[in-house]
Amino acid sequence: MNTFGKLFRVTTFGESHGKLIGVVVDGCPAGMEIDEKLIQEDLNRRRPGQNDISTPRKEKDILQIMSGVVNGVSTGAPICMIIENKDKDSSKYDGVKVTPRPSHADFPALMKYGNWVDLRGSGRFSGRNTAAFVMAGGLAKQLLKKENVKIGAYTKAIYDVNDDQDHTLEEILAFAEKNKVRTINAQIADKMIDAISKAKENEDSVGGIITCIAEGLPAGIGEPMFESIESRISSAMFSIPAVKGIEFGIGFKAITMYGSEHNDPYVIEDNKVKTETNNAGGIIGGISTGMPVKFSVIVKPTASIGKEQDTVDLSEMKDTKMKIEGRHDPCIVPRAIPVVEAMTSIVLLDLMLQAGKIPRVL
Amino acid sequence: MNTFGKLFRVTTFGESHGKLIGVVVDGCPAGMEIDEKLIQEDLNRRRPGQNDISTPRKEKDILQIMSGVVNGVSTGAPICMIIENKDKDSSKYDGVKVTPRPSHADFPALMKYGNWVDLRGSGRFSGRNTAAFVMAGGLAKQLLKKENVKIGAYTKAIYDVNDDQDHTLEEILAFAEKNKVRTINAQIADKMIDAISKAKENEDSVGGIITCIAEGLPAGIGEPMFESIESRISSAMFSIPAVKGIEFGIGFKAITMYGSEHNDPYVIEDNKVKTETNNAGGIIGGISTGMPVKFSVIVKPTASIGKEQDTVDLSEMKDTKMKIEGRHDPCIVPRAIPVVEAMTSIVLLDLMLQAGKIPRVL
Amino acid sequence: MNTFGKLFRVTTFGESHGKLIGVVVDGCPAGMEIDEKLIQEDLNRRRPGQNDISTPRKEKDILQIMSGVVNGVSTGAPICMIIENKDKDSSKYDGVKVTPRPSHADFPALMKYGNWVDLRGSGRFSGRNTAAFVMAGGLAKQLLKKENVKIGAYTKAIYDVNDDQDHTLEEILAFAEKNKVRTINAQIADKMIDAISKAKENEDSVGGIITCIAEGLPAGIGEPMFESIESRISSAMFSIPAVKGIEFGIGFKAITMYGSEHNDPYVIEDNKVKTETNNAGGIIGGISTGMPVKFSVIVKPTASIGKEQDTVDLSEMKDTKMKIEGRHDPCIVPRAIPVVEAMTSIVLLDLMLQAGKIPRVL
Amino acid sequence: MNTFGKLFRVTTFGESHGKLIGVVVDGCPAGMEIDEKLIQEDLNRRRPGQNDISTPRKEKDILQIMSGVVNGVSTGAPICMIIENKDKDSSKYDGVKVTPRPSHADFPALMKYGNWVDLRGSGRFSGRNTAAFVMAGGLAKQLLKKENVKIGAYTKAIYDVNDDQDHTLEEILAFAEKNKVRTINAQIADKMIDAISKAKENEDSVGGIITCIAEGLPAGIGEPMFESIESRISSAMFSIPAVKGIEFGIGFKAITMYGSEHNDPYVIEDNKVKTETNNAGGIIGGISTGMPVKFSVIVKPTASIGKEQDTVDLSEMKDTKMKIEGRHDPCIVPRAIPVVEAMTSIVLLDLMLQAGKIPRVL
Repeated sequence: MNTFGKLFRVTTFGESHGKLIGVVVDGCPAGMEIDEKLIQEDLNRRRPGQNDISTPRKEKDILQIMSGVVNGVSTGAPICMIIENKDKDSSKYDGVKVTPRPSHADFPALMKYGNWVDLRGSGRFSGRNTAAFVMAGGLAKQLLKKENVKIGAYTKAIYDVNDDQDHTLEEILAFAEKNKVRTINAQIADKMIDAISKAKENEDSVGGIITCIAEGLPAGIGEPMFESIESRISSAMFSIPAVKGIEFGIGFKAITMYGSEHNDPYVIEDNKVKTETNNAGGIIGGISTGMPVKFSVIVKPTASIGKEQDTVDLSEMKDTKMKIEGRHDPCIVPRAIPVVEAMTSIVLLDLMLQAGKIPRVL
Repeated sequence: MNTFGKLFRVTTFGESHGKLIGVVVDGCPAGMEIDEKLIQEDLNRRRPGQNDISTPRKEKDILQIMSGVVNGVSTGAPICMIIENKDKDSSKYDGVKVTPRPSHADFPALMKYGNWVDLRGSGRFSGRNTAAFVMAGGLAKQLLKKENVKIGAYTKAIYDVNDDQDHTLEEILAFAEKNKVRTINAQIADKMIDAISKAKENEDSVGGIITCIAEGLPAGIGEPMFESIESRISSAMFSIPAVKGIEFGIGFKAITMYGSEHNDPYVIEDNKVKTETNNAGGIIGGISTGMPVKFSVIVKPTASIGKEQDTVDLSEMKDTKMKIEGRHDPCIVPRAIPVVEAMTSIVLLDLMLQAGKIPRVL
Repeated sequence: MNTFGKLFRVTTFGESHGKLIGVVVDGCPAGMEIDEKLIQEDLNRRRPGQNDISTPRKEKDILQIMSGVVNGVSTGAPICMIIENKDKDSSKYDGVKVTPRPSHADFPALMKYGNWVDLRGSGRFSGRNTAAFVMAGGLAKQLLKKENVKIGAYTKAIYDVNDDQDHTLEEILAFAEKNKVRTINAQIADKMIDAISKAKENEDSVGGIITCIAEGLPAGIGEPMFESIESRISSAMFSIPAVKGIEFGIGFKAITMYGSEHNDPYVIEDNKVKTETNNAGGIIGGISTGMPVKFSVIVKPTASIGKEQDTVDLSEMKDTKMKIEGRHDPCIVPRAIPVVEAMTSIVLLDLMLQAGKIPRVL
Repeated sequence: MNTFGKLFRVTTFGESHGKLIGVVVDGCPAGMEIDEKLIQEDLNRRRPGQNDISTPRKEKDILQIMSGVVNGVSTGAPICMIIENKDKDSSKYDGVKVTPRPSHADFPALMKYGNWVDLRGSGRFSGRNTAAFVMAGGLAKQLLKKENVKIGAYTKAIYDVNDDQDHTLEEILAFAEKNKVRTINAQIADKMIDAISKAKENEDSVGGIITCIAEGLPAGIGEPMFESIESRISSAMFSIPAVKGIEFGIGFKAITMYGSEHNDPYVIEDNKVKTETNNAGGIIGGISTGMPVKFSVIVKPTASIGKEQDTVDLSEMKDTKMKIEGRHDPCIVPRAIPVVEAMTSIVLLDLMLQAGKIPRVL
């Protein structure tokens, strides 16, 4: 339920307006020097209040490692990491159990957990819980880097602003942090910011597309059938609130291609087997080909909007209207970038361990 | 690896050109009257050689139940089901370990399993293994039906022929079996058949989109985080060879909608909570809303084509050309329909059991 | 690795001389009123320094609930519970990586984790980690009680003092807390205390036997084969440091009985099916019979003793001698009682949930 | 439920009087030359009807490999193995759902699965299902042998005949197959056979103790806490019907030893770390020390006896008497020896894989 992974296992806990957000990572190899600063950087990329196009909630999200690390090195014991919740304002959530917010988890969560469910700040369903993914993924990312597997994500589209060009991981790492929306091209960034600002002005919200690339994954990683790389990555991505779709490689465009166009021909380059194109996104038969792993996820427009909306009054079982007053992001895409990278890191590291490619003691 | 599910657990085995394709279902409630005919019908919808737009391989795919069922009723013990492989012709697969077929699992599988991997008829990577899903899913489907959860899938697109209309489950169940491509509209069916035939003539292949709908799932099913309905369904879908993308609800179109357009407003209808639209595809926060669960998957064009292709000779590490001679489908979409239904059934039944909604003894 | 259970899942973290000992419980039904005082009582029964026959380490072990509970009621979200480590003295553990303590985990842990392993206060291998079991088990115990399943354990033997009489759960609950060693009979308690005191005087240690009884478990609980009640309970018991054996029902005495003596004949009592004897310990075929579940575990003498011992110097690979100076218990049996109860509770609750006998929302 | 293991995963199916007994092994490394003869030998050691002190049921138990192996070499795909049931006589089992056999699973199984449960020949609860363990364990045993890990078990006690001497694995492998009861010492064997024969004459049954030794396991194998070697082995042992207890190393005798006697002092021998004694049975802190892993299991007297027994009539809820007429073993211990070896092999191989000590491709 709240545990993910097989050998590198991640268990999350905490709520948006509870004491903390936490994660236990079990199975991290012993002897790994942990750079807390790098994890903190990813937490900073994710945290609220970083600029004028994100939620005004102010949280420092300072990483605290509670176990499993001595003198900055992993001991092989489970690593517990937390951030505290400081800037909580639950006053706006009293009513959501009676008048559920459209396209929020309020109603299905009530159906599942009864009235006991904690919906303050959306509780367990808040995007805030993805900070746990970022902490765990931060470990995985560092370890993968030592194995020359590098991962980066960027904003490919926001509303009707779409960057149609293909980009490399190198470009992502060079440019995506240079603008507020974490896209590659500065001009496109401006248009995206405009789109978000316009939505914000209208008390509305927009979504977008995030593209993620992992380079350096050796060929032969991944398990067939139910533990294909695609199964594991998609499973991880849909644990991120607001993600509603995923495509690998050329994705939906595959539909209008012939097999002869879509197939990736093998070629020898520098005495290595590569493919001329990479329509498969680096994965065939659920297993890595050695080419970059590439996929995109759809992020829906933020459900929280300031506009008045139709909903129901569950106490009287009648239609009504509501206005959401909590703090929220007009577009969650830029803050979801480090989350996508984190979950991808967790999946790929776990599969590397499963393939016996990384020792249990470094 | 080859096991899926938590309480309703499916373990598959077998190879395309081995003795059989098999599955063990563990956790099927005791006391279920099993209609073998219904499972056989789904096997027939999936089996090769059913018509002129599918592979010429001739297999009857007769269901054999080997354990767990006495007098047609489940006993609570694991249910093993198999079909035999009869029409095997492995003569065409000798070379694939040296000159791997583009966009087939040959190369990554060699990287993973070494030269020991069985690639006759694509071995474990063949779509033939999805017959195991259909057998296990057949059980799940029947059990869900007793709980009034009904599932159906249809072909939404083949190559450039796209059925843009929305359809209900009722329409799917009424019309999708009336044409060879399993689509709703007869005129569109003809165009799709033309597209496939044209690809076939050119020794080429095409892909498409399958849309699946599940109705009757009560609100409150699904686990948050890593076992969201979307995580589980996507994980299941990507275990089907050739699936390269998935979108829930309105999917990729969400990108160009404002939150105020995308949000599904709640309404009271017949004293029940419904949503006016269903852009979420029946799932919010990973949990069912009570509205129909709806998603679409992308199926890439069949990798096996008759046309000459570029590839490499691994024994000499040089570029070469190849022609694939084995039997294959010019478009796998119509045969994948019952597979999508089966995997969806497995996921939803498992989540129903996990939610305690179905007793362990019927 | 550090996670246990299927639907009621327990993940532990922390080290003896780290910041804290913690546990995350995932799958606790929503709507459970949690009595923190009862959990604290069990922590108190387990905590060090409670009397003169336990280790002098002073820890208050105050329960802190960090997530998953609002206003004293479980929300369905994962419940994180911790106690802090206050009275740490790691000065005595510097040498154990060079001269490993006999029958402590020092040497095998070094072989497994390399020099990175945290052995301060025995780190992850310390009995202190069982506080996490007590916290998680405290939840399970309370929930089982609501279902009329009650669990109690007592000290059956310490060194050569053995209580040969059979006892009921009622007796355990009435008498076991009335003496320092948690045994039933006051005279036997005195002899046990003498045995421990004598060992303590000699800078030595003793072990013993703990017997545990669970009443009220309905017939038909437990899964066959690999998830038999015995498999699950034994697996749980051997996660408690120092446990080296387990027997169910009449246990080792079964060897010298004929089948006709050992078999438990069924009888009707008050229109219910019971067995005249309960040599099976309430479990046949891995499934509960409705009779009390009964088993005993062997606890070895504490490995930490003050006496000089032979060991090796790993830096020079030569024989040497050592004296252990850390704080320790001359007999761990009395403090292990609440731990045995806790792990039993976790197993039985999980199996009750798996059998669908407890709703997911209370 | 019917699946065991983490990376080397074993799923069993079949019933005593069904078509077959089968197992799927998932995760066997690719490239392993499989000696079917060795697996068949272990099946022969387990099979019924091997001599006058075992059940008269006649089964050849011929191993059939159905998948995952090509030309005698594992491909990395799941390996399905079966034996057929030939000599079935279900006529004697009609009544057991009304008058359950004492100390058989009949009653608890009815409570769990309702009247649907298959109790012909005890169905899923029959010792016959352990043939599946022997097939899967046969693979594991062979693979471990390549890694110089060797496993053997012998009969330590039958009824009141107890071999008090310690034995080495060498002795087990040399002598245990030289007599019908699989014990080391020929004189003791005769006494054991007498004890069994006497029980048989009296239409009664006896139990015993099996001791198992594994040599060659490197130090540092095993996971702490819930996946300790003891947790995994005990969990495996209690999946064998009739096992009611287990002790590691010196076991129950530990109770009457002081810590100073029980602790195993380290010594350097041939520049390797060993322990002078091995009271711990090769496992400390759940992890291997490099010394032989040693444990003993209690096997209860066979529940099936010819003598008249008290039981109940469930249809009328009144006391009654019964005589069991099916075929059965007066003592199951000798036939359980290969089963204990098999389950031990499965556990140790899985832990070796988990520790990354065996490559995924040989």
